[in-house]
Amino acid sequence: MQNIGIITKKSDPHALEATKKLAQWLHEQERQVTVTLDTALAVDIPLAIAKRRHQDELPQDQDLIVVIGGDGTFLAAFRAVGIRTIPLLGINMGRLGFLTEVPLDAMLPTLTKVLAGQYRIEGRMLLTVSVFRHGEEVLSHCVMNDVVLHKGALARMIEFQVSIDDQFVFSARADGLIIATPTGSTAYALSAGGPILHPAIDALLMAPICPHTLTNRPIAVPGLGSIRITFTSKPGNNPVTAPGGRSSQSTEWHDRLLTLDGQTGFHLMEGDTILVRRSPHRLQVLHAPTRNYYTVLREKLHWGEQLGLCTEPPSPR
Amino acid sequence: MQNIGIITKKSDPHALEATKKLAQWLHEQERQVTVTLDTALAVDIPLAIAKRRHQDELPQDQDLIVVIGGDGTFLAAFRAVGIRTIPLLGINMGRLGFLTEVPLDAMLPTLTKVLAGQYRIEGRMLLTVSVFRHGEEVLSHCVMNDVVLHKGALARMIEFQVSIDDQFVFSARADGLIIATPTGSTAYALSAGGPILHPAIDALLMAPICPHTLTNRPIAVPGLGSIRITFTSKPGNNPVTAPGGRSSQSTEWHDRLLTLDGQTGFHLMEGDTILVRRSPHRLQVLHAPTRNYYTVLREKLHWGEQLGLCTEPPSPR
Amino acid sequence: MQNIGIITKKSDPHALEATKKLAQWLHEQERQVTVTLDTALAVDIPLAIAKRRHQDELPQDQDLIVVIGGDGTFLAAFRAVGIRTIPLLGINMGRLGFLTEVPLDAMLPTLTKVLAGQYRIEGRMLLTVSVFRHGEEVLSHCVMNDVVLHKGALARMIEFQVSIDDQFVFSARADGLIIATPTGSTAYALSAGGPILHPAIDALLMAPICPHTLTNRPIAVPGLGSIRITFTSKPGNNPVTAPGGRSSQSTEWHDRLLTLDGQTGFHLMEGDTILVRRSPHRLQVLHAPTRNYYTVLREKLHWGEQLGLCTEPPSPR
Amino acid sequence: MQNIGIITKKSDPHALEATKKLAQWLHEQERQVTVTLDTALAVDIPLAIAKRRHQDELPQDQDLIVVIGGDGTFLAAFRAVGIRTIPLLGINMGRLGFLTEVPLDAMLPTLTKVLAGQYRIEGRMLLTVSVFRHGEEVLSHCVMNDVVLHKGALARMIEFQVSIDDQFVFSARADGLIIATPTGSTAYALSAGGPILHPAIDALLMAPICPHTLTNRPIAVPGLGSIRITFTSKPGNNPVTAPGGRSSQSTEWHDRLLTLDGQTGFHLMEGDTILVRRSPHRLQVLHAPTRNYYTVLREKLHWGEQLGLCTEPPSPR
Repeated sequence: MQNIGIITKKSDPHALEATKKLAQWLHEQERQVTVTLDTALAVDIPLAIAKRRHQDELPQDQDLIVVIGGDGTFLAAFRAVGIRTIPLLGINMGRLGFLTEVPLDAMLPTLTKVLAGQYRIEGRMLLTVSVFRHGEEVLSHCVMNDVVLHKGALARMIEFQVSIDDQFVFSARADGLIIATPTGSTAYALSAGGPILHPAIDALLMAPICPHTLTNRPIAVPGLGSIRITFTSKPGNNPVTAPGGRSSQSTEWHDRLLTLDGQTGFHLMEGDTILVRRSPHRLQVLHAPTRNYYTVLREKLHWGEQLGLCTEPPSPR
Repeated sequence: MQNIGIITKKSDPHALEATKKLAQWLHEQERQVTVTLDTALAVDIPLAIAKRRHQDELPQDQDLIVVIGGDGTFLAAFRAVGIRTIPLLGINMGRLGFLTEVPLDAMLPTLTKVLAGQYRIEGRMLLTVSVFRHGEEVLSHCVMNDVVLHKGALARMIEFQVSIDDQFVFSARADGLIIATPTGSTAYALSAGGPILHPAIDALLMAPICPHTLTNRPIAVPGLGSIRITFTSKPGNNPVTAPGGRSSQSTEWHDRLLTLDGQTGFHLMEGDTILVRRSPHRLQVLHAPTRNYYTVLREKLHWGEQLGLCTEPPSPR
Repeated sequence: MQNIGIITKKSDPHALEATKKLAQWLHEQERQVTVTLDTALAVDIPLAIAKRRHQDELPQDQDLIVVIGGDGTFLAAFRAVGIRTIPLLGINMGRLGFLTEVPLDAMLPTLTKVLAGQYRIEGRMLLTVSVFRHGEEVLSHCVMNDVVLHKGALARMIEFQVSIDDQFVFSARADGLIIATPTGSTAYALSAGGPILHPAIDALLMAPICPHTLTNRPIAVPGLGSIRITFTSKPGNNPVTAPGGRSSQSTEWHDRLLTLDGQTGFHLMEGDTILVRRSPHRLQVLHAPTRNYYTVLREKLHWGEQLGLCTEPPSPR
Repeated sequence: MQNIGIITKKSDPHALEATKKLAQWLHEQERQVTVTLDTALAVDIPLAIAKRRHQDELPQDQDLIVVIGGDGTFLAAFRAVGIRTIPLLGINMGRLGFLTEVPLDAMLPTLTKVLAGQYRIEGRMLLTVSVFRHGEEVLSHCVMNDVVLHKGALARMIEFQVSIDDQFVFSARADGLIIATPTGSTAYALSAGGPILHPAIDALLMAPICPHTLTNRPIAVPGLGSIRITFTSKPGNNPVTAPGGRSSQSTEWHDRLLTLDGQTGFHLMEGDTILVRRSPHRLQVLHAPTRNYYTVLREKLHWGEQLGLCTEPPSPR
């Protein structure tokens, strides 16, 4: 681990402070680690020892990207890393994240272990989403959490149909549909009533948002399937009444939108086809050896703790 | 019942046919009923015997409005009737509606009974929604189903807080919040996981849409309460990537929108306050004596039917 | 308030301590309050100043019952009070309860206010449940939270049908059915997916437990309705395999059980009819003026707190 | 396929009729199929051509078991087959089952294809459940749908903790916990709010039943994990009031029960440990080539059908 980049939540002074501290500490290590920071932090963190790159280019040639912030910063770092095989290590600023497991006060001890080779890397599923229009691919993107199909805010609902590997699965009227990785199952899909899928499960989760048919339940399908969404009739839009009664020139009526990892929006048009597949690439998440998935889950969801009274019986053979 | 207006689903040929049939039948009754039709139907239903009015003005001076279509047509009729004390009678076109209970083949028998005074009128709760901006009321509206606060389609979520009668109730991060009448409990709120409230219950239903906090459950509060929604920080928007990568001039980023009865949209701005209260007026729904609320519910939701094997025990005293 | 009884969680030393402290304090007041304690506490709280009665008889002639413990103790106190018009005041032992709102350190200040007449009494709905068998009433009970119809633990499901005021509502196959007061809506019914009903709403909540038909959703019906549950065919039971493979003589196969307030169980038999109605009596809950329903709800459910950043806009006129 | 056994829903005359028809048809085939029927059907189906065996022994030496009945009959057939590698083919009696896909009128055409080698066999996950008591294994069983831990019908709840591969996952208070295979995800787990898992996914589903903590959501964990459930304090039981007020000698108070595939019950005791793992064996389900999983799902759950208006766009390359 000679080259380490840091991607930081720029709006958080504590994250900036931690970034500075980490950069200096890394520089002082015997191993002569080269640290690269975001060019945009030149004023906030005026360290001569750091190389500078624009965030989107920062991951290039790095052996590790340390993410300092919350799960949102981790998502931004993922966008910069893309499909490059570079591990990410998330440090949180006080509030445990699903992806930023390491608390601030464990940052340097964790990095010490990492530099000593004491870590494990977990490969997590990524999704590829494509939009086809008149036979051409007009969007192609890689996501780590979810692809969300959603009605426009003023549309009443959308009507779509879902096929997997060219087998028709169902049609639905709903506010939308979330297609999530297991990593994304604890993000937006959970709010929509979806289950939790352990990240080691090879499955894609489809969770409808406010479906008209109450039996349209979340469903997990095998990871190797290709999910295709097509549309039918254009549902009618509603008139927008601007304040004062004037008619609004809003483009808000767009019926159908696609949101990628809750970060990037895309307007869909009549006749578009959406294709979602497991990516051949995987997100590389670096974990400290001490933490595990269920610990994070339990803390985030306030699940019951180990019961004090219990004397755990000897493990059955 | 001397003056009867008919509001029709104009796009449905069967509804037009039924309207024509009903208008003629009413004209032929001994009681000399005056029928008023929508001016827009002059070509489709060229009946000399009918008076004509624009739909928005049609309910004026009528003793009854017959709605021929589905629940959407009923909503449109309600918008035309507003707070006038005129009963509405809904006729469906083959697909039972919560508000259009009477099937087409029971239309004339039902009207025969109605003209003979055999009916009951049910008063249903209406809501008044107001939006205040810089101390001024910029929106005031009456709804029969629901007031829906919703994030813009490309916003990540909205953050809002709810008070009732100046008591703070909760703050939440969610896709939105539905405030529904009991009538509206079987509409959008049901898709969002809300319960069914019998229309005779004096309660307002609040159902969050995809809440971040999983314990934010639907709650019914007393009908006389004033629900006030206020906002805090403006959540960040997402960049819209138009096809081909060009940046879109979309105004879709509006964070917060209000939809009234799923029909009318309204853009909210920083600092707006929303106030929702039970209206002093009530929707007048005319029912045929034979049908009841639970029958409709059972048919719409495919609930279990009466069990054939059961020999109902004598009613306990 | 001359006569005050105390009902205590006997297994909790802190509750016993608090009871002793309160009894002495009450005795020392100028107003010469007579304190009555449970006979069963004679050893634990050997106060000469207290009158003694068996818990079931304790509420007789009291002006107030102070409940020291948790919501379970409150339920026990309710069972002792029954339909007598005696207010109950709940003191919790550190963990806020829906019914035991007052924290221990506010006990004496609250009682000071109560003795000075500064309190309000809230009447809460109670339910009457009756079971009829061969035309005779074999059970009659009053509950404050819920009547739960449940399959026997080894039965596969139960099949039942629900009528309200002699109108058939639905039949269902499910693990059971909860019929709850608004007070009970935050107890067991919430675990089964039911909504929260504010206690001032005059409605009965029916929430199915694990229904086979996914559209069988929780429904609130008007408080004045009589809910009747009848049964049909006897569902088959499962063989009980006792450890070692011997066949068990268990009576566990009883298909259908009734649980009242989660406290009292009752075996149902073929042909039984259950009738649940709003009681003419109401539970008298004494509240400190400072606390309100939503505060308790927010704390129990970990709902979002008031948002610091928010400058509450002036109340709309 | 020389030896074919038939397992039949004995209480259904139509199933008996179909069994007779199939046995004769099989006997008349050129290939000289030997048919084995349940000894218990000797009177109902007096065919000299059939071999007879007790249902539990029937699958021995068979090449195929045809199940004629519903999903319950399929479960019974699975119990007889156990871990033997014998494919099962389910024929339904008019009501499509998840496991009995073939309608009665397609029985002979389907068998014609099967005898001609036109079929596919799907291996489905089975679970092994063990109960350990004082270091000894007191129960060991193989299930195809689910292992259900449930409170006794009159107990208030159970408290348990879950570990996977010796990592503590969560503790919970609930009515129970369902551990299901993907096949079982559309059975009881669906009623408890669980998601649908496609049978090709290698995952175990845990769905809590009426959990006290609302954030205790269904979770799917990797198939190779060992789920261990242990208990803590014994929750208090409720008094059972027998009809007439006499105290019942019921053994119904058993706190904790285990139900296997909804068929077999088992009483748990203090200190028991439950271990659930994926079985090394798989259920062999024989499918007609024309039907697929999503078709069955769509029909059972009344999901939306393919939309008529839709002109499916050309498949994206």
